[in-house]
Amino acid sequence: MIRHIVLFTWKDDATDEQRAAVTAELGELPGVIPQLRAFTVGGDAGINQGNHDYAVVADFDNVDDYLIYRDHPRHQAVIAEHIRPILASRAAVQLKL
Amino acid sequence: MIRHIVLFTWKDDATDEQRAAVTAELGELPGVIPQLRAFTVGGDAGINQGNHDYAVVADFDNVDDYLIYRDHPRHQAVIAEHIRPILASRAAVQLKL
Repeated sequence: MIRHIVLFTWKDDATDEQRAAVTAELGELPGVIPQLRAFTVGGDAGINQGNHDYAVVADFDNVDDYLIYRDHPRHQAVIAEHIRPILASRAAVQLKL
Repeated sequence: MIRHIVLFTWKDDATDEQRAAVTAELGELPGVIPQLRAFTVGGDAGINQGNHDYAVVADFDNVDDYLIYRDHPRHQAVIAEHIRPILASRAAVQLKL
């Protein structure tokens, strides 16, 4: 299994509507990318200070399936239209489990 | 459910032994912190450039259980003795699912 993990911080001027659109748009991906075995996304719960703002955890059967997701036009469109415009920083890891 | 996600980068001079010790020591935590419902840890798979070096994903039934883990002496000891000495940067999010 491959677990893809990415954390974002948003620009200070990112609006609530822009932040919510990321979740709405990402939420469409499991319907169009069947290689997604599990997909959890959302904003930080606010328990600790100094955290990043947003997380995506996506599980795949293997590296090839992850690459299909990574490079999928619909995923790339979400990144280009909804994530990148409000992105301040990004941290990612792929785990082989 | 609470999903705790943290990504680390290690200092350039972190040895293979130090990196491996993080996984070995974290691997002991499910045996001593029963609030851990799921626990996946490990080094980046090397698929993409620019990634962080290491990931921890820990699932809990609720915030109180997460806080028990966060503040547990055994967990704090792993951070103090094995993570902090080689830590370059850290990114974290807690998701409420």
